[in-house]
Amino acid sequence: MMKQRARNIALTIAYDGTNYHGFQRQTPPVLAVQNVLEGALAKICGEMVELAAAGRTDAGVHAYGQVVNFFTDGRIPTEHLPRAVNGLLPPDIVVSQAWEAPREFSARHSATGKAYVYRIEECRVPNPFTRNYAWQVFQPLDHEAMHAVLLLLKGTHDYSSFRAAGGAPMSPVRTLDEIRLTEEEGRLSIYVHGTGFLYHMVRNIVSTAAAVGMGRISPSRFAEIFAARDRRLAPPTAPACGLYLLAVDYGQRKML
Amino acid sequence: MMKQRARNIALTIAYDGTNYHGFQRQTPPVLAVQNVLEGALAKICGEMVELAAAGRTDAGVHAYGQVVNFFTDGRIPTEHLPRAVNGLLPPDIVVSQAWEAPREFSARHSATGKAYVYRIEECRVPNPFTRNYAWQVFQPLDHEAMHAVLLLLKGTHDYSSFRAAGGAPMSPVRTLDEIRLTEEEGRLSIYVHGTGFLYHMVRNIVSTAAAVGMGRISPSRFAEIFAARDRRLAPPTAPACGLYLLAVDYGQRKML
Repeated sequence: MMKQRARNIALTIAYDGTNYHGFQRQTPPVLAVQNVLEGALAKICGEMVELAAAGRTDAGVHAYGQVVNFFTDGRIPTEHLPRAVNGLLPPDIVVSQAWEAPREFSARHSATGKAYVYRIEECRVPNPFTRNYAWQVFQPLDHEAMHAVLLLLKGTHDYSSFRAAGGAPMSPVRTLDEIRLTEEEGRLSIYVHGTGFLYHMVRNIVSTAAAVGMGRISPSRFAEIFAARDRRLAPPTAPACGLYLLAVDYGQRKML
Repeated sequence: MMKQRARNIALTIAYDGTNYHGFQRQTPPVLAVQNVLEGALAKICGEMVELAAAGRTDAGVHAYGQVVNFFTDGRIPTEHLPRAVNGLLPPDIVVSQAWEAPREFSARHSATGKAYVYRIEECRVPNPFTRNYAWQVFQPLDHEAMHAVLLLLKGTHDYSSFRAAGGAPMSPVRTLDEIRLTEEEGRLSIYVHGTGFLYHMVRNIVSTAAAVGMGRISPSRFAEIFAARDRRLAPPTAPACGLYLLAVDYGQRKML
């Protein structure tokens, strides 16, 4: 029987996903955030470690507040861990917090809620500074219409119309307890908070709401698509680069 | 005698300077913005072109509103030029405007003023999203003290203390008609407008004002350094990645 490792350490991390093939470990030379982070932690802990993460962000998706945990016999005090790991990480991955978690804590399974933000930028010409950080849209959007249809999604519903085609056969019912659109100088942020999300759900919600904002589909068509529970009716998934995993909740403890 | 080319075309361009060795043309494989832009314009115009630019930004420095001009016999209408060139450019360089300029117009020599902005971010931990777009400072800064010393620089003065060491022996007298610091949620912007700038002048002003903000030098020491006209007294140049060439003026015509 394998000896149990002594400590369960949790980390909050931020990363710019532009240069990674998502969070989840890949076979080199394909590089994921997990490969890089596990490599740095192995050096600090003096042993291989295996991370579990709250959310498996896709290639190009960013995180302000991803949460991971791992078991180790390494003896570094948690208060020194962020600085030590950040010294080994490339500058597009940053550990912002570390804490000693109870043995039963799992960044993935203990999560009780997640928040995402999706950024859209209305541009006359491409903006070189946000090319990897927002979905650039070259026409004005009807923000009020978008906000109105987004509010239809609040509550507990079957979100089949917004799940990834060919996704795993899990229940399509989820609860979105907060969804709102804010705008400042042509920069839109769609904030979504829920107890769980289907694969590609936020990006499919955004692409369908944006189709309303562009006048390509009517608000009533949006409602029909939502009610139909049929992925084939909604527009293609919105670009990965606009999506950010903002924070993960663990009961009372809100992480960020 | 060489035949004069028929048209003088001016462009406003924005670029993310992170991946370039500055604006000014370099010998490949070292790549400058000018190399890439001249390459794209040559394809559109059907002939080699040579750009003159309002400002020679350094490696890592960005631009929202760089202005360039070039002479050509190419026949593309100016209204189609931005889209055509942007189709050939990498996404970190964007032509935002093109116009037919009078024969005597020079983006460099006709400029009557320039505006820069320098961004500083106060961080607890490194921010992966602004690593190439701001100077990240890991302590709170005294914004009021910084603003106060920056205002000492307004007017027509000898800025020798803030010029690059070993710079060309031109007059160190310049006029800064506007300088201000704004702050929002730990993100500082130092805006500077003047008729002309010495090499590294904005970055040296920023590093010295930041030293005041950090409490390393007093406001009265800042005034002494400024009055001494001696580059050796001021702190090292602030990082390139915080600096943006914002706009260039040509008499009444403000570009951006």
